[in-house]
Amino acid sequence: MEHTLKTYEEYFSQSAEVRMCHYEKAGRLQHVMLSHQFSISLMEELFDIADHVKEMTRKPNGIEFLKSLLSHKKAMLYFTQPSTRTFLSFLTACQMVGMDTGEVRDPSLSSEYKGESQEDGVRVFSSYFDLIIMRDPKPGFCEYMAYLLDNTGRSVPIMNGGSGKDQHPTQALLDLYTMHRSFQENGGIRNKKYAFVGDLLRGRAVRSSVMLLSQYKDVEMYFVAPPSFQIAEDLEKHLISQGVKITKTDDFNSVLSAMDCVYMTRLQDEYDLSGESNSIDYSQYNLTPDNVASMKSTAIILHPLPRRHEISPEVDADPRAMYWRQLRNGVYIRAALLLYVFNVADRLHEY
Amino acid sequence: MEHTLKTYEEYFSQSAEVRMCHYEKAGRLQHVMLSHQFSISLMEELFDIADHVKEMTRKPNGIEFLKSLLSHKKAMLYFTQPSTRTFLSFLTACQMVGMDTGEVRDPSLSSEYKGESQEDGVRVFSSYFDLIIMRDPKPGFCEYMAYLLDNTGRSVPIMNGGSGKDQHPTQALLDLYTMHRSFQENGGIRNKKYAFVGDLLRGRAVRSSVMLLSQYKDVEMYFVAPPSFQIAEDLEKHLISQGVKITKTDDFNSVLSAMDCVYMTRLQDEYDLSGESNSIDYSQYNLTPDNVASMKSTAIILHPLPRRHEISPEVDADPRAMYWRQLRNGVYIRAALLLYVFNVADRLHEY
Amino acid sequence: MEHTLKTYEEYFSQSAEVRMCHYEKAGRLQHVMLSHQFSISLMEELFDIADHVKEMTRKPNGIEFLKSLLSHKKAMLYFTQPSTRTFLSFLTACQMVGMDTGEVRDPSLSSEYKGESQEDGVRVFSSYFDLIIMRDPKPGFCEYMAYLLDNTGRSVPIMNGGSGKDQHPTQALLDLYTMHRSFQENGGIRNKKYAFVGDLLRGRAVRSSVMLLSQYKDVEMYFVAPPSFQIAEDLEKHLISQGVKITKTDDFNSVLSAMDCVYMTRLQDEYDLSGESNSIDYSQYNLTPDNVASMKSTAIILHPLPRRHEISPEVDADPRAMYWRQLRNGVYIRAALLLYVFNVADRLHEY
Repeated sequence: MEHTLKTYEEYFSQSAEVRMCHYEKAGRLQHVMLSHQFSISLMEELFDIADHVKEMTRKPNGIEFLKSLLSHKKAMLYFTQPSTRTFLSFLTACQMVGMDTGEVRDPSLSSEYKGESQEDGVRVFSSYFDLIIMRDPKPGFCEYMAYLLDNTGRSVPIMNGGSGKDQHPTQALLDLYTMHRSFQENGGIRNKKYAFVGDLLRGRAVRSSVMLLSQYKDVEMYFVAPPSFQIAEDLEKHLISQGVKITKTDDFNSVLSAMDCVYMTRLQDEYDLSGESNSIDYSQYNLTPDNVASMKSTAIILHPLPRRHEISPEVDADPRAMYWRQLRNGVYIRAALLLYVFNVADRLHEY
Repeated sequence: MEHTLKTYEEYFSQSAEVRMCHYEKAGRLQHVMLSHQFSISLMEELFDIADHVKEMTRKPNGIEFLKSLLSHKKAMLYFTQPSTRTFLSFLTACQMVGMDTGEVRDPSLSSEYKGESQEDGVRVFSSYFDLIIMRDPKPGFCEYMAYLLDNTGRSVPIMNGGSGKDQHPTQALLDLYTMHRSFQENGGIRNKKYAFVGDLLRGRAVRSSVMLLSQYKDVEMYFVAPPSFQIAEDLEKHLISQGVKITKTDDFNSVLSAMDCVYMTRLQDEYDLSGESNSIDYSQYNLTPDNVASMKSTAIILHPLPRRHEISPEVDADPRAMYWRQLRNGVYIRAALLLYVFNVADRLHEY
Repeated sequence: MEHTLKTYEEYFSQSAEVRMCHYEKAGRLQHVMLSHQFSISLMEELFDIADHVKEMTRKPNGIEFLKSLLSHKKAMLYFTQPSTRTFLSFLTACQMVGMDTGEVRDPSLSSEYKGESQEDGVRVFSSYFDLIIMRDPKPGFCEYMAYLLDNTGRSVPIMNGGSGKDQHPTQALLDLYTMHRSFQENGGIRNKKYAFVGDLLRGRAVRSSVMLLSQYKDVEMYFVAPPSFQIAEDLEKHLISQGVKITKTDDFNSVLSAMDCVYMTRLQDEYDLSGESNSIDYSQYNLTPDNVASMKSTAIILHPLPRRHEISPEVDADPRAMYWRQLRNGVYIRAALLLYVFNVADRLHEY
């Protein structure tokens, strides 16, 4: 190695745009780190693959064929930050395309091991596997590891599985994929009204999905939350600079009937910063059969789950409730991403 | 959903017979919850499948064929109540028929997760898998989940893996299957003398197996235990109403030589209710080479394992000791159940 | 069983040579316990298989073929002594040859379970699997279990995965395999100079590798360590009796330029027995770009990993640094061992 490696601090002194260059090779995604990486055309390529995958899982033969596509590859699920559901979604996606898997799930392994650097630790795992799906509590760890591995003789793709306060790019992708499928017969994602409801300040899912959605033409966004939970200023500025028409409100019911998509999230009152959470009537940010009745018949309801009180279980049976489907879409889009990263998606047409 | 779902309390105010109706569809078992569900004819169908499976595992080609039967299905092993051996038996059964598996084994996940109901939690898992094998400490949880899932748009079969104080139906099945195989050349299960030895009051395995066995004609049952560990009154009444000839005794050696089957269990003195356990001579309820010598040459010895002192290790080499075989039979009967539930057992004849 | 089984104490009162006889059947290894078991001819047979395996993993078809070789076998990874990396190396090796796996990794299971003996516990696991890879903290436990299982009606091979202070035979094998591959074009392992550096007194890896290496002709060994960390007297005597030319020194840089292989290990100062560790300048036992520059161009650097300060990360890019390759070689040699133990290595030639 001729050059000297950047330290963690040097690496992150670069802008996201510059860092992103590292994650591509010959015009293809090499590592999956940030939602910024997904242009509309790349998303639509992935949606097509995911549609294809979903279709194939309907028949035993299709399932067998899918499992043959990456049966020569092995994935390491490095989840030193615990998350049973994201873990299982990725595991299922790996199994769907036939990958063998190993797992590291002990949070204590995210720190030093017998004095070994964590970088060495991850490099050890990269020796045994062809891909690492990583969720680690240390900010930026995934990205920095991808950088370090790229500078060894033997790199493998890394996918960010939603580490710490970092982005959760596959969650954003599955949200968009669910919008795409739901609006397929109805003009697509563009030219629709989207409400985001709940804790918009700290909810990581909303932020990433909003970023992806802002690329589509003529989307209007409604941010519905008590003032102390409204979206961050930088996100608001970014959206306005992108030409997105936005509305901030704390009156859910006044906008509900006009929405094409209502994206619900938890109001994380346990983290309330202002101390005023006790004085807020959270129930007005909930969906119940009563207010769902006022929604458009073509509208959809999303939720990244888990939910608490913000969607009443009676709503589950409503045909507009898409959150359980959204969960399954997560598996299809992750499987699609695996096929894409290993460049075997074209083989789907052989079936 | 037109109707309102029953609460947990409403659900369990129904009798087992009424609840059982929920677990069948088109005359076939959908969920595996209670030993009541197994009639002699269903058991014999399962025994045939298990025999077939066992036979096929003798050759690499047979093993490969078995693994092709359910390679398009995925099982979730939801073991929030830890049990390494039952877990491994089910895991091996799943692998035997080619199923991919995921697991949830963290007991802390059996309670609320970020305010999410456990029902939602299990529904999440059902999104990723085609079957759930469940062992959860909360009484009735498996059954109630099966009921709730059946009322969603997407249900999957649930198998009770021996939850809490609930029944352990697959343990009872493997006991009966071992009796079936052992007596195959000797007139079958009917018309034999069975002794059940040890803690008959709280031992869950005995209760379930006795219920299944009581369906067979002309079985005589001997219950061998100190008075304070004798079978519960309701079970005794049930057996008598079924016309089973029963004998209760605390003198093991007086009945041993007449038995066709001796089913040993641990005397769980750690839970002794009466406080008299210290005054009981437990050693008289043990099997050693000495008293085994008095048994019929065609008799068999069963034990659900793990054992402590009640069977001396020297007995292991005796041809009548069936408990290690019983353990392996557990894998075959569980594999048979998987093939049955997914209705692919007929394909065994293609081999 | 006619004879009485030896107790643990009786068993280990036998010499390693006598015990080793138990691990062979018809001239083939049955259990993998000690590095003593590996003669040069057996090692070279395994190296050939490993070369073959490595070659085949380069192409999807080769990977598929490998996975077909043992897809009818199941391995239990019994790691009641935690070790993530050895576990993952064995797991990957199992997956490489198509074996299904189950795992027991809860250290609490290494002790009594409901009063059950650990022997019974392992026998339970042997019922479900065709091979046990075992790492348990109790000294000699693997060996004694192999002995006990051999005396039941149903034994399965056991591989020692580096239990406690027992030997770690597969680590020694992978060290030798790396030497073999590195010197393939350069006269092979024999007639070379090897330095072992670091804690030579307690480092288990060094001891086993030195034993295997001492079988080769004309190897010279240099032991580089502070006096209080030098090799044990019994090992020194053994090497001299084998005719190995040895040199002990605490001056690393004086010998470095003459070496063909430098085997680095951690100086485990945390365990220093003499209390003098603080006064020792450990940095003189480190490799840095500076002193690596003085090494022969054909030399190689090994390290069992994890490392701390003893090899500077800048050395990683040097073509003589073989430690990351060594790690991957561990998977190939373990896969080779699996194929050997199940006697299917000949089938590699079908490809």
